[in-house]
Amino acid sequence: MTKSNSRESQFSIDPIFLDRWSPRAFTGEVISESDLLTILDAAHWAPSASNQQPWRFIYALQGAADWDKFVGLLVESNQEWAKNASALIFVVSRDFNGDFSEGRKSYTHSFDAGAAWGHLAMQAKLSGFYAHGMGGIKHDQIRETFAIPEGYRVEAGVAVGRLADKSVLPERYREREFPSQRKPLSDVAFKGKFIAN
Amino acid sequence: MTKSNSRESQFSIDPIFLDRWSPRAFTGEVISESDLLTILDAAHWAPSASNQQPWRFIYALQGAADWDKFVGLLVESNQEWAKNASALIFVVSRDFNGDFSEGRKSYTHSFDAGAAWGHLAMQAKLSGFYAHGMGGIKHDQIRETFAIPEGYRVEAGVAVGRLADKSVLPERYREREFPSQRKPLSDVAFKGKFIAN
Repeated sequence: MTKSNSRESQFSIDPIFLDRWSPRAFTGEVISESDLLTILDAAHWAPSASNQQPWRFIYALQGAADWDKFVGLLVESNQEWAKNASALIFVVSRDFNGDFSEGRKSYTHSFDAGAAWGHLAMQAKLSGFYAHGMGGIKHDQIRETFAIPEGYRVEAGVAVGRLADKSVLPERYREREFPSQRKPLSDVAFKGKFIAN
Repeated sequence: MTKSNSRESQFSIDPIFLDRWSPRAFTGEVISESDLLTILDAAHWAPSASNQQPWRFIYALQGAADWDKFVGLLVESNQEWAKNASALIFVVSRDFNGDFSEGRKSYTHSFDAGAAWGHLAMQAKLSGFYAHGMGGIKHDQIRETFAIPEGYRVEAGVAVGRLADKSVLPERYREREFPSQRKPLSDVAFKGKFIAN
């Protein structure tokens, strides 16, 4: 058992997995580009099928000329808090292997990009930041804005920032500002069988 | 810059991201179920969209009655080395949110399951093991063997084991038994734009 961050794991896992969480209250402070690239560098050392590295990251830094444009590509409910992040990232995956003309579709591009996102979130924590993944993004507008061609999938957004007191949040978010719990491990890990749930 | 494990990152990332790699040479030693569940426990603390936790893990331990059955669900080229792992895992994702009858398809189930896999690989390393992901698995047979219904996607296999000398490998794998490199970060991380490559 490991206890940390108002969470408790059944087995003795490294505390970082409990300490990493997805807050919405960010300070809005500027991040250096090298701090952000450190986080993305760690992400891009993730494993992937045949080392294809299908992950791509499009980012903006707080205070930059394109910051408001990036914020506008989140759904409105995420804009409210993510505008105070230090960086915004859109994760894109390449859905084919080798040359596009060959048309060999990848089966694992989203899964592999997710592994990179998992590593991104860990390095963010190790660097003193928090990363909050967002499914709520404007996929079509992101594709259009950055001229992302066929063969690439817009996966998710990520807000990276320094933790602030939850008083900075709109009231409806304050009561949700705590580390989330997880299903019992026995609901997701099955020895020799599968249980649909 | 960080140097470790015959790898060098551009920025100063935590060495664990370089130390984690995907070997094929495993000792074949038995793993305790609690050691394996520690690795899966860490994985299941990964972030996911709306905390849906769409990851599922089906596992077998080296030496158990169903070990050969699990090995047989890998493509033949993976069977050659993965049979000497300490555990085999199939990662499955739930591709809908809420009740199945509601039919709300998840956009991020594979991506989220990938984040859990990224965390799995990290805890494996922290626990003294290595995890090797495998796209080369018999997806249809896995579905049939474990009666995995519609609404779930078979994502990938994972071999977890203790590192052995590469001399245990068939010759054609020995020359590939080293930590893989990565694309330059500038090929995958773009400031304010997207570059198809």
